[in-house]
Amino acid sequence: MIDIKTVTIVGAGNVASWFAFILAKNGFLINQIYSRSISNANELSAKYSAEPIDDIKKLSPNSDLYLFALKDDVYLEVLDELSIPLTFAVHTSGFNSKEILSRYSKCFGVVYPCQTISKTFSFNELVVPLCVEGNNSDSENILLNFAAKLSDNVKILDEQQRFSLHLAAVFASNFTNAMYDIAFTILEEKKIHWEMLLPLLQCTLDKTKTMSPQQAQTGPAKRGDALILQRHIEQLPTKELEQIYQLLSDFIQKRNGK
Amino acid sequence: MIDIKTVTIVGAGNVASWFAFILAKNGFLINQIYSRSISNANELSAKYSAEPIDDIKKLSPNSDLYLFALKDDVYLEVLDELSIPLTFAVHTSGFNSKEILSRYSKCFGVVYPCQTISKTFSFNELVVPLCVEGNNSDSENILLNFAAKLSDNVKILDEQQRFSLHLAAVFASNFTNAMYDIAFTILEEKKIHWEMLLPLLQCTLDKTKTMSPQQAQTGPAKRGDALILQRHIEQLPTKELEQIYQLLSDFIQKRNGK
Repeated sequence: MIDIKTVTIVGAGNVASWFAFILAKNGFLINQIYSRSISNANELSAKYSAEPIDDIKKLSPNSDLYLFALKDDVYLEVLDELSIPLTFAVHTSGFNSKEILSRYSKCFGVVYPCQTISKTFSFNELVVPLCVEGNNSDSENILLNFAAKLSDNVKILDEQQRFSLHLAAVFASNFTNAMYDIAFTILEEKKIHWEMLLPLLQCTLDKTKTMSPQQAQTGPAKRGDALILQRHIEQLPTKELEQIYQLLSDFIQKRNGK
Repeated sequence: MIDIKTVTIVGAGNVASWFAFILAKNGFLINQIYSRSISNANELSAKYSAEPIDDIKKLSPNSDLYLFALKDDVYLEVLDELSIPLTFAVHTSGFNSKEILSRYSKCFGVVYPCQTISKTFSFNELVVPLCVEGNNSDSENILLNFAAKLSDNVKILDEQQRFSLHLAAVFASNFTNAMYDIAFTILEEKKIHWEMLLPLLQCTLDKTKTMSPQQAQTGPAKRGDALILQRHIEQLPTKELEQIYQLLSDFIQKRNGK
């Protein structure tokens, strides 16, 4: 079984930066870092003594692993310019099929971080679960072994599972944040500190660690309290927010047989 | 200024139970506990050496404070049976006006806990912000002083602010939990552990501690990634979920000028 020691990173954005950080921290050697923008490639490479490149044709064939961390919609464009076969190619996307890599390597797969990785947080503090998938059991074992060095939370997920996880993350993270956004705006209007809600929000999240969210549901929609629902809708400043309130309350009521 | 030492609790549900716990812990004497169900009144009273009553007409006039912790829709019914004037009456509802108490006491107000209080969590672990409001500045000062003994997080909120906080809590807690519920169901279908998402959800919440939720927004709707939005909607099993996905994505896109 190949033991991965050297890595080339294709990309220099937030996800690429996190991988560079965690790879270096765990003793991997980073050979090259590619970005279409040479200044981005320079900046990240300098931190890890890697060679910066802005032409994918300059990819050296000497790495054990080629880790693609690109925006979902530029993968095909970048891959299309590849001129050498790669030892082992993985991408890091929740959205793309592993098969986009099949033309470029006999060993390929996915290492998908299920986390929102941005420059806002210190990489040190980030807990990043990794989902791995290989094109065959050998590749998968190599990737499992590799990923286990980067995170304590590694799972094998097939493509359909990964797509579902990506979709679930949109509801549980992006849409949840949109709910925070609406709440924040309602409070701001009345000069109430957001901090007032934080213990409640932590409690809402913590409850799902010991019971299902369906069991944890509370509130006027769950109780079928029509008077509160009506008064709340009257308080909302826009038709759009009324519609969101109504649709989500209907969803909760149906889920609870009201 | 009255110093509140003895309290009568009207109600024996989760909120009443939390108040009884925290009052006793902080040295207050609980005189009586009322519940329409004598067994509930007995059970809670026994813990705090209080007198259980199931007839509101048996309310003793000897308490410094009468704390109403009832379901929003039974307040008027219970208050209607009150036959004695009360020294100081407060309710604990996010929804009702303080004025529902004005007929029964010269000093009245609200002590609203902004937390979901259930038997699921140990009361010891609960961080409960308290919002207080009095019918005049004397009442309000007495309540501020009282509430400060029960929580480190006390704010004066007027009625309109409290109604807004209650509404904001529905979005940020109840609807957020509905998003968790949908995500949980999508993962369950593909046999993926919910735990996989927990670090992401904690990160989503933590980000709002250092920036506004609008600044913290991520995801395909924020980026205006039409291909992912379309693929996600195709993956959803019901029209209702498609509608929720579309409406919330539209909201995020508009918020971000897409």
